[in-house]
Amino acid sequence: MNVAILGGTGKEGAGLASRWAQAGHAIIIGSRDAERARTKAAELRQITGREAIDGESNADAARRGSVVVLALPAEGLARTLPEVREGCRDKVVISAVVPLTFGGGRLFTPPPAGSSAEEAQALLPEAKVVAAFHHIAAHELSAAEHPIECDLLLCGGDAASKQVVVDLATSMGLRSVDVGALTNAGPLEGITAVLATINRRYKLKNSGIKITGL
Amino acid sequence: MNVAILGGTGKEGAGLASRWAQAGHAIIIGSRDAERARTKAAELRQITGREAIDGESNADAARRGSVVVLALPAEGLARTLPEVREGCRDKVVISAVVPLTFGGGRLFTPPPAGSSAEEAQALLPEAKVVAAFHHIAAHELSAAEHPIECDLLLCGGDAASKQVVVDLATSMGLRSVDVGALTNAGPLEGITAVLATINRRYKLKNSGIKITGL
Repeated sequence: MNVAILGGTGKEGAGLASRWAQAGHAIIIGSRDAERARTKAAELRQITGREAIDGESNADAARRGSVVVLALPAEGLARTLPEVREGCRDKVVISAVVPLTFGGGRLFTPPPAGSSAEEAQALLPEAKVVAAFHHIAAHELSAAEHPIECDLLLCGGDAASKQVVVDLATSMGLRSVDVGALTNAGPLEGITAVLATINRRYKLKNSGIKITGL
Repeated sequence: MNVAILGGTGKEGAGLASRWAQAGHAIIIGSRDAERARTKAAELRQITGREAIDGESNADAARRGSVVVLALPAEGLARTLPEVREGCRDKVVISAVVPLTFGGGRLFTPPPAGSSAEEAQALLPEAKVVAAFHHIAAHELSAAEHPIECDLLLCGGDAASKQVVVDLATSMGLRSVDVGALTNAGPLEGITAVLATINRRYKLKNSGIKITGL
């Protein structure tokens, strides 16, 4: 599958890129700055030993992807998404965006839309947005040799789109858990605040969550 | 320890009562209707074979508890908490309240205060509120014979109060995970929406969460 990762030069995006490249997918790293995307792509080709990793502007990456992953900062969606709207038309768009505010005070406040995923869906009305991959620590993603001990929680409005996400999760060895409609994206994004706090408090880099009883 | 459980006639409150009674704590079930609380207490004495389970009005239960657990409906806090404010003064108050809206639409919307726990803290300014016990399925609690496969996530502003909650969790066999300040209560309450959706979707009664990497 051609997987475009917008904001793929960041830690989380690059981690996802490594894992998927190793699973045999073709990756297009997107960035506001196409040159930075190309540099990161070259670096990831070297790390993973996989050739099918390119870098592009976010808009070109979205056009080339059959699936588009948003690994963007939450506060940049309103600026970035209009330029990729055409490229995302009718595609599965995976929002891994987490609206966290670091630096004291409240770590997680859901945006007015209820979640960043719902904000993305409003800005990309022709796309099929699925919220997923918020909880897989970048540290875990880059350590490609060992399996990731975490479930992949996803939610979204379209069953076929969710199946695409499940397949992408399976390809990196993750069990998927379907958490219903996109209106549950806020709680999924909020879990990232829980994990970030646990990481800081217990001096970890890779806490994750697993659903029990399933 | 004397544990008062306000809203203890509900499924979650009664489940907590059973587990704690079996761990040797004295329980005071609170309800708006003291008679209903007494009936529930008698029922729980029979089920658990423990004598130290009484029923009282919420206000009297709060007065008798050395720790007070809120197992109340989210929408009733503003009405119920002012009458128990004196009884909760200077005590550890555990908010297990979850602001979920069933019946279509968005399952979880945090209240204006950020969380039900923060709303409770505002209504009980002299109490030391800790948010915890949102995720332990009532079904699991009532099935006393087997261990609960779930972590106890808690957050709050006061370390000594959190230790009391950790001890109560340990007494029912749960591992505790400290999730920082009370401003993280919204994400903890939101996880209940995730688990409720998983239960419905996978036809379970007792999904839970565990933190990995810890």
